[in-house]
Amino acid sequence: MSIKEMAKNAKHASIQMAGLNSQQKNNALKLIAEALIEKKNAILKANTIDLERSEKENLELPLLKRLKFDLDKINLVVEGINSLILLEEPVGKTLLSTEIDTGLELYKVSCPIGVIGIIFESRPDALVQIAALCLKSGNAVLLKGGSEAKETNKILAEVIEEASYKAGIPRGWIQLLETREDVSAMLKEDESIDLIIPRGSNSFVKYIMENSNIPVMGHADGICHCYVDSQADMQKALNIVLDSKTQYVAVCNATETLLIHQEAAKQFLPAIRDEFIKFNVEIYGCEKTAAIIDCNLADETTYKTEYLDYGISIKVVESMEEAIEHINKYGSGHTDAIITENMEKAELFMTLVDSGNVFLNCSTRFSDGLRYGFGAEVGVSTNKIHARGPVGLEGLLIYKYKLIGKGHIVKDYAEGSKHFTHKSLNKPFSL
Amino acid sequence: MSIKEMAKNAKHASIQMAGLNSQQKNNALKLIAEALIEKKNAILKANTIDLERSEKENLELPLLKRLKFDLDKINLVVEGINSLILLEEPVGKTLLSTEIDTGLELYKVSCPIGVIGIIFESRPDALVQIAALCLKSGNAVLLKGGSEAKETNKILAEVIEEASYKAGIPRGWIQLLETREDVSAMLKEDESIDLIIPRGSNSFVKYIMENSNIPVMGHADGICHCYVDSQADMQKALNIVLDSKTQYVAVCNATETLLIHQEAAKQFLPAIRDEFIKFNVEIYGCEKTAAIIDCNLADETTYKTEYLDYGISIKVVESMEEAIEHINKYGSGHTDAIITENMEKAELFMTLVDSGNVFLNCSTRFSDGLRYGFGAEVGVSTNKIHARGPVGLEGLLIYKYKLIGKGHIVKDYAEGSKHFTHKSLNKPFSL
Repeated sequence: MSIKEMAKNAKHASIQMAGLNSQQKNNALKLIAEALIEKKNAILKANTIDLERSEKENLELPLLKRLKFDLDKINLVVEGINSLILLEEPVGKTLLSTEIDTGLELYKVSCPIGVIGIIFESRPDALVQIAALCLKSGNAVLLKGGSEAKETNKILAEVIEEASYKAGIPRGWIQLLETREDVSAMLKEDESIDLIIPRGSNSFVKYIMENSNIPVMGHADGICHCYVDSQADMQKALNIVLDSKTQYVAVCNATETLLIHQEAAKQFLPAIRDEFIKFNVEIYGCEKTAAIIDCNLADETTYKTEYLDYGISIKVVESMEEAIEHINKYGSGHTDAIITENMEKAELFMTLVDSGNVFLNCSTRFSDGLRYGFGAEVGVSTNKIHARGPVGLEGLLIYKYKLIGKGHIVKDYAEGSKHFTHKSLNKPFSL
Repeated sequence: MSIKEMAKNAKHASIQMAGLNSQQKNNALKLIAEALIEKKNAILKANTIDLERSEKENLELPLLKRLKFDLDKINLVVEGINSLILLEEPVGKTLLSTEIDTGLELYKVSCPIGVIGIIFESRPDALVQIAALCLKSGNAVLLKGGSEAKETNKILAEVIEEASYKAGIPRGWIQLLETREDVSAMLKEDESIDLIIPRGSNSFVKYIMENSNIPVMGHADGICHCYVDSQADMQKALNIVLDSKTQYVAVCNATETLLIHQEAAKQFLPAIRDEFIKFNVEIYGCEKTAAIIDCNLADETTYKTEYLDYGISIKVVESMEEAIEHINKYGSGHTDAIITENMEKAELFMTLVDSGNVFLNCSTRFSDGLRYGFGAEVGVSTNKIHARGPVGLEGLLIYKYKLIGKGHIVKDYAEGSKHFTHKSLNKPFSL
């Protein structure tokens, strides 16, 4: 089947999915969870094929670890599906209700977006999570996983499709793409696909953003900053900067740049250097930094670097305003923290730093849907429309306006024989 | 100044604008309203130059009428600004507040999007409305109006810029583009511009959507449908279809296609034809339609046609399901109505028709921000993310997450010495 046909089928399925009720969707999720347990041996076998091939192809150890889909992982995704079942129904929520005139009532009601195209990395658990989120929110989904996980992804998609079909979910709601060429073809299907969510390497996300008319939700870079103010508590600052940089380096919410106020630099830099040494953090500092501690000298690429590793850029700034300007220029709008005891400065920093997540006196590593308490995470977005920051189920939803009349026509209002009342109704949509 | 520099300046101004309070913005709006009255003679003079030149260039009469910016129009836009001042402050609203753990509080707070690029048609009043909406919502704006209104737009932008500068709004927040080449250049400034809102002809909107990485909010087509069900009240149906088609034909929410259930066709079609004749509505019908009433025979382009005039496509359908499928295939996701007395069918239609506005027993012409009671309208969107349907001020807003800690680090939670509480706080953000 061509990608165009697959996208059309997904579109067709998505229309039916908008009409599913909570019970139907939760029942499908239940059957999927059961089928994953039931088919565990076949899943493990498929994963072993992927693992053996990838080992032969010398896939790096961390990637092999992510590729592994064992019993523990199966139990974890099943647990995830079960907690998703308990979440409130996201579709059909009345967000606004207004009496336009007697007998003419307007309702703004949440609904699925339609067809989502998702490209994700090697972890096969992502496939299950994403499929479950799309089902719960009533969206059809085209999925493309990492090629190293192709056997695992294939059987997972089959298990999910079969189980959900038994629960009455229309065929075509979940379809797996296989090649990079498929992805390129998918990017052209703007008539059928409503949103692309790429979860992968920076260069790949950028490629997608530049090669599709379909809206893209996600983030390319994660260049996060900690700004240590002249009025920071130095012990808090040490803990926070260390945690932000070293707690887990390979993720988008790890700090890549430390900005330090010139008045605090002489005290703070040697102290944080002593901590960084324990973790073998490589330091790239400006000239003022280099005058205080031993480090590599920063060049023009330094502050645009996302290390995703034990490396950090450091810059001494003359003022908080310089820090804000630096962040808005070099940052990626992801997560940026100020460490200060001055609440006025904190407030200004949090207002003027143009990022999805702005933090005071805590680690940038908190920037995450699970830590925020969202239950389920679609991804992290640095978009400035629709959804920003960690995105939960609501990122897969939009709304439509439903207007109910009793034969109302505009002519009566244009000619002045009738008048709008525009009263808030505060009641959920029903006919 | 190059468009790149203009966009950078707008970005710079937008950062400062995010920090403006309600009083500052409302004061600026007040000064703008006063300046428009004060400078009325200069504005009228500029508009006369535009009108005289456009008359010489044989601009069509309806366009000349839209171009005219007289005292009445000035008073109307001033009235609009004054009502905008009274609207609730949209920035800084707390949309969610959660205790993550003791002393660690998460707030989701509304904020401006940043820099908006707006391309609008000949009406100079649009410039004032758009500028006022952007100011109220704290966004910087790059504007491009119709070239026929260039003198009027120039003086209006100047008056607005000067008045708002006096109120402390940073220079560069409002800038006027002059040529089509400027627009093309603007579409490339995705580093500075966050959202493009095109208000113009279909082909131009499509061109913009296809030639920019910047998100676009708007609508290209407005192919709206009325579906008259077998269980429709025929008198209601007659009134609604007639109003939807003829109340004002040149607009995007006018109906372009009538779908009629086969069981109602023999009764309804002759009756609506008799009404259409009074308005000289040209009918393009399917073969089944042509078997009942005199009409032009529809071809494959008919149901994709947006007449914006006294023309209508008609199709006899075998079932509501066929009507829904037709609308989802040929419609533009704008506004579609069902006329029926069967509430189950109505509910299904409103769920399965994938449009921003789905109506029951009322005219498609109600699809409008003012009629919906939104006060101010940014435009109508057929997007499936961010904002859909008539878009009020909220379409110019996004949110950021603000997390306030007291030295909290992720390590404590990863190692299990601390645990998340995730309790709803229900309180507005403050430090």
